[in-house]
Amino acid sequence: MSSFTGSAAPTPRWRHLRVDLAAGVATVTLARPRKLNALTFGAYADLRDLLAELSRERAVRALVLTGEGRGFCSGGDVDEIIGATLSLDTARLLDFNRMTGQVVRAIRGCPFPVIAAVHGVAAGAGAVLALAADFRVADPSARFVFLFTRVGLSGGDMGAAYLLPRVVGLGHATRLLMLGEPVHAPEAERIGLVGELTEEGRADERAQTLARRLAAGPALAHAQTKALLTAELDMPLAAALELDAATQALLMTGEDYREFHEAFTAKRPPKWQGR
Amino acid sequence: MSSFTGSAAPTPRWRHLRVDLAAGVATVTLARPRKLNALTFGAYADLRDLLAELSRERAVRALVLTGEGRGFCSGGDVDEIIGATLSLDTARLLDFNRMTGQVVRAIRGCPFPVIAAVHGVAAGAGAVLALAADFRVADPSARFVFLFTRVGLSGGDMGAAYLLPRVVGLGHATRLLMLGEPVHAPEAERIGLVGELTEEGRADERAQTLARRLAAGPALAHAQTKALLTAELDMPLAAALELDAATQALLMTGEDYREFHEAFTAKRPPKWQGR
Amino acid sequence: MSSFTGSAAPTPRWRHLRVDLAAGVATVTLARPRKLNALTFGAYADLRDLLAELSRERAVRALVLTGEGRGFCSGGDVDEIIGATLSLDTARLLDFNRMTGQVVRAIRGCPFPVIAAVHGVAAGAGAVLALAADFRVADPSARFVFLFTRVGLSGGDMGAAYLLPRVVGLGHATRLLMLGEPVHAPEAERIGLVGELTEEGRADERAQTLARRLAAGPALAHAQTKALLTAELDMPLAAALELDAATQALLMTGEDYREFHEAFTAKRPPKWQGR
Repeated sequence: MSSFTGSAAPTPRWRHLRVDLAAGVATVTLARPRKLNALTFGAYADLRDLLAELSRERAVRALVLTGEGRGFCSGGDVDEIIGATLSLDTARLLDFNRMTGQVVRAIRGCPFPVIAAVHGVAAGAGAVLALAADFRVADPSARFVFLFTRVGLSGGDMGAAYLLPRVVGLGHATRLLMLGEPVHAPEAERIGLVGELTEEGRADERAQTLARRLAAGPALAHAQTKALLTAELDMPLAAALELDAATQALLMTGEDYREFHEAFTAKRPPKWQGR
Repeated sequence: MSSFTGSAAPTPRWRHLRVDLAAGVATVTLARPRKLNALTFGAYADLRDLLAELSRERAVRALVLTGEGRGFCSGGDVDEIIGATLSLDTARLLDFNRMTGQVVRAIRGCPFPVIAAVHGVAAGAGAVLALAADFRVADPSARFVFLFTRVGLSGGDMGAAYLLPRVVGLGHATRLLMLGEPVHAPEAERIGLVGELTEEGRADERAQTLARRLAAGPALAHAQTKALLTAELDMPLAAALELDAATQALLMTGEDYREFHEAFTAKRPPKWQGR
Repeated sequence: MSSFTGSAAPTPRWRHLRVDLAAGVATVTLARPRKLNALTFGAYADLRDLLAELSRERAVRALVLTGEGRGFCSGGDVDEIIGATLSLDTARLLDFNRMTGQVVRAIRGCPFPVIAAVHGVAAGAGAVLALAADFRVADPSARFVFLFTRVGLSGGDMGAAYLLPRVVGLGHATRLLMLGEPVHAPEAERIGLVGELTEEGRADERAQTLARRLAAGPALAHAQTKALLTAELDMPLAAALELDAATQALLMTGEDYREFHEAFTAKRPPKWQGR
């Protein structure tokens, strides 16, 4: 537990997600397999709140987001979200769409790498959850479908129109968001949407391997790398260089940097502390 | 015609372009084939003014930009533009270069997708017109030549130094703009400059197919997707998420979103209204 | 020498780099081959100061950065930098990290293209020097290793978290900076990190060929292309178009643009003056 914990108690049970924590790796499973893990209001809220709580836990050093059953996530539930939003008033519509954006901010803002383990369909909000992750590990069954226009909505949902051009370039992003067609695993790898393409059925296993490796490493260095990648998309070069200088000067006073040098000199592997 | 029409009458005839409108698709043809569709002062001005007029027409839901004859567009005419600019004074030089930029702003800003159908050469300003489009459909004869430095000018013409790094990355963009060498269709596809590579001689046909498909779809959703892609290149993540939330809340009150849900529930295809 | 030279005399001898100037091409060699050209405090300072001096020399029209011996550059020296920084106080740590950033600003800001000729390892700061160049010419032995996290530091060193996503996209950049794994030449070419992949052992020769070609060309056009590519990464589209218009209007009053038109009309190659 962080020293900077106040009165709020950790949530004892997440009703809309399955959460496991082992050896520094949090595994968050979308576990509604009969509905292809379609998201509900509760699932979005839990993702937002869970990431906020885990961000205060020094014990979490990497997070795997995965889906149970035949696919990763089919997006917002047609009845429980699309149907329900049709009767919401303006203020609630805005609240709902802000909440989904808060999930993306939480994924980009949490101080540990997030790995999406994707098999089968990642559609709509499911595709954006994967897009917002730091790593996408996918098996050949994976397909990403930014299908928002196909339900009459803007392709720019939950930051997709911000993130996708920065991952695959503006041309591909326009095509994917405007047309809402599936991007299958080989194309996703070719255009840079998938970083690791695994054998069939092994996305989860490979995502866990990557997560454990990250969790065993210099966690503070990882956290700062993520923070700078996120922040410097929005900064001019001169400011980014100043942020880098301050960050690196700080980490040069840290234990892991000293440990690297001692280990290197002694010709042994470093024992990372994550601070 | 839009309700928001004032005193200005629509231009009855475009002298420097051919313009056809059918089934929601505007087809704009650069039609000076003996000069490889080299652009003149009048052609730039017509493109700027035409796009402004079409942007007020609710009837236009997609636009195809194409070139008649052996190629797409060879860029600014050597005599009628390069020669002519040599005797312009400073204020007029600035006016001319602002006008060419206004064409790019109009392409990026119009509320419908723009599809460039490219065969043969797309050089100089012709390459940038294609670059500014939302989709580039090209046949194997297509080649893009950002030849500005080869006439002694900056490669950053009409927003090319802004757009190209965001489409193909900074490394490729530097190479293309600095050296002015042709990028042939296969490389253009590989680096993300071309979204659809067609069979020989079929770029126009495929561009029309795409345009008709877009025009038959949820036009307001397409328009907002384009607007967000354009705007969010220039926005930080937090602001982009707020824009997404407001846009999506708005579209959730629209007819097409309700229609999607009704059609889905009734297991029939949706009838898009574009609003 | 520039007309805008004050009292400061040019540095007569660079102790930490080898510098050659011929036919408009400056060749800067990291020449500490027994240490794989590991960088020292002095080498960083020399790079910063050299680039500032060369930027005032109209005679320099292209620069090649290369490494002597088995590789390009292994990054900061483990003893002379990592060891030394462990005993620096906070202010000096910040000074050091600002200095390394100033080298990157100088590479991005100098008014001539910079070509990195890479063979063997380009690691840590060596990888970022290559990344900051305008062109990366590499042979099949080249490998780029953004190994910062592996020494306990942030991957966002010297602007890497700003530059790399803009060159290869956010997904690849996250993977490379977070994991610190080598990127070999074929992958580097595939993701856009290398612009020209040469035959074994020929990176230097090809880089010189490119540099001589650039130096013989319209140098002011090249300089402005580079300046706009650098600046427009940090500008909104509307501002970029205004900058383009002003730049192009300026260059249209220049000698090279007039020379192009005369040469074209006379059907002879242009004689570029670089102004």
